[in-house]
Amino acid sequence: MSELRQNIITRDWVIIATERAKRPDKFAVPKRELKYLIPHQSDCPFCVGNEEDGTVETFRLCDRNGWKVRAIMNKFPALSPTQGGVRISDGIHRAMSGIGYHEVIVEHPRHDLTTALLAIEDIANILLVYRQRYAEIRKDPRIETIIIFKNHGESAGTSLEHPHSQIAATPVVPYQFRTRIDEAIRYFDDTGECLVCRTLEDELTAQQRIIVESQYFVAFIPYAALSPFHIWIFPRRHSSSFDDINDQEIADLATTLKTVLAKIYYGLNNPDYNYTIRSVPTGELGTKYFHWYIAIVPRVSRQAGFELGSGMYINTSLPEESAKFLRSVVIPSINPNS
Amino acid sequence: MSELRQNIITRDWVIIATERAKRPDKFAVPKRELKYLIPHQSDCPFCVGNEEDGTVETFRLCDRNGWKVRAIMNKFPALSPTQGGVRISDGIHRAMSGIGYHEVIVEHPRHDLTTALLAIEDIANILLVYRQRYAEIRKDPRIETIIIFKNHGESAGTSLEHPHSQIAATPVVPYQFRTRIDEAIRYFDDTGECLVCRTLEDELTAQQRIIVESQYFVAFIPYAALSPFHIWIFPRRHSSSFDDINDQEIADLATTLKTVLAKIYYGLNNPDYNYTIRSVPTGELGTKYFHWYIAIVPRVSRQAGFELGSGMYINTSLPEESAKFLRSVVIPSINPNS
Repeated sequence: MSELRQNIITRDWVIIATERAKRPDKFAVPKRELKYLIPHQSDCPFCVGNEEDGTVETFRLCDRNGWKVRAIMNKFPALSPTQGGVRISDGIHRAMSGIGYHEVIVEHPRHDLTTALLAIEDIANILLVYRQRYAEIRKDPRIETIIIFKNHGESAGTSLEHPHSQIAATPVVPYQFRTRIDEAIRYFDDTGECLVCRTLEDELTAQQRIIVESQYFVAFIPYAALSPFHIWIFPRRHSSSFDDINDQEIADLATTLKTVLAKIYYGLNNPDYNYTIRSVPTGELGTKYFHWYIAIVPRVSRQAGFELGSGMYINTSLPEESAKFLRSVVIPSINPNS
Repeated sequence: MSELRQNIITRDWVIIATERAKRPDKFAVPKRELKYLIPHQSDCPFCVGNEEDGTVETFRLCDRNGWKVRAIMNKFPALSPTQGGVRISDGIHRAMSGIGYHEVIVEHPRHDLTTALLAIEDIANILLVYRQRYAEIRKDPRIETIIIFKNHGESAGTSLEHPHSQIAATPVVPYQFRTRIDEAIRYFDDTGECLVCRTLEDELTAQQRIIVESQYFVAFIPYAALSPFHIWIFPRRHSSSFDDINDQEIADLATTLKTVLAKIYYGLNNPDYNYTIRSVPTGELGTKYFHWYIAIVPRVSRQAGFELGSGMYINTSLPEESAKFLRSVVIPSINPNS
């Protein structure tokens, strides 16, 4: 008999399909050789030496050996800051010019690495650039929502191998954000608590779905995970927006993120994945009722017609078992690509 | 410069990314040979002769030559009707036993056909079985929402070649349904109109995104299509629930569905796709403010981190151009598999 669970933050119902359940290690993707990846590729636009390809650099984090992380404007941006935001309302139609920001964060000079294999300091550098760009973009009063995300692998939406992530800033509040905020406000009005803080407290008490805890962050599989190995990383400190993160927290998050991504890398054979950093819309900064967090979605299952047609999810893994499995994954001390 | 459009029914914002736009025919998938498909496959659980494999048949539509369409209980159901629905509320967690229905509709005795290639009468038979099962399942008072859907092809979530679709009935109203209904009620309260009726009227006036019109149905690409070739088929007659469809409308819908799916089949080289039939929840039957419709989503693009992290969509096609392209696709009169 399957079980339905409601995700308290997204409000989505998930069918935990025990009849179809697989053992956690069965979600591992077939082993892939990384033999074609070399540290430097002459035709890669993100590799060292190819920086002058016409892209506009918005930020560069350097040491004496050169850049460590770069932020550049996307060559084919979905949104662009060069124009005023014009709202059009024509009958039932609403449209707007595509103003906003769409930047690429080139995460490391080396072509053949991925976050799971990077040094902690390198991951901290990426997070520092996220914070810098986030804070800078937020100053634009036309921006309502900023999303940081990473597509790792083809089924997660990228064909570029060089490690990179993206920042998108939109001139609207996405409807999904609005509905989640409305629900969080309702919860706050009922209880006086932030829904994210409360969920975190609950997970720490239950200790059934935790993957790793650190001084400032907790990584866990939600009670009603929308897909197998759907992971949340919550900051312990209540804060509405990612750019409020301080230096100690960045160092700590780098370790937590590396640990979680390495456990996925080794435990599930480097599956494709997305991660996203969600903050509240810029118009809601400083709010008490909701706070920023990271979601990681390994691409080990597929959304089919049921999900499209209902907005519900079928998850063929038990969150408690997936978390136990990830806790047990040992990260080798030797990095295979170093 | 890209354009943001808001989908009035889903409330989602879509970035129509003209900078990245492709010509409609560029979304065609690489041609696939169907050479391995034969009319009958001895190891296919849905082929004639293999019916007695332990599955429970819930309905069979026959003529003197045997069955035309069968409904069977899913062998690995996500939801099952055999138990009472128990709600559990434990602190912030809400859960429920997985009661409901999960049936497979075997659409045709032949293994090698697909809806785009079927005769109109065969498609009408499938729709008749949908209606019969829908009406039957709706009698169970534990059921809140019934979704009919089809997964065509591996990237749409099925590995079974034999043409089939599914019905799922859930003991909860999915949150996505609830939010859309709330918005439709707000629109109704503001205007006295059903949002679906109004959208249809608007599309018929604009005549820019229509694919095909028939006596009872209109197929079009929405103004803010969430993905390339995202298609809606709306009934002209206001009706909240699919099982209210009458025999004339079924015959007409069979023609419309065949036309649209054949245009996709020939125009885009038989891409994988999902379709879903969405009705209002059973608790809202007879409502004036929302009505049932079909959504078709060809799998010609991918959701990546931006979509996951924002609930917004990037669509690299212009709905008006995609509709024009589909209008121009000519369906050959000779069925290649007949």
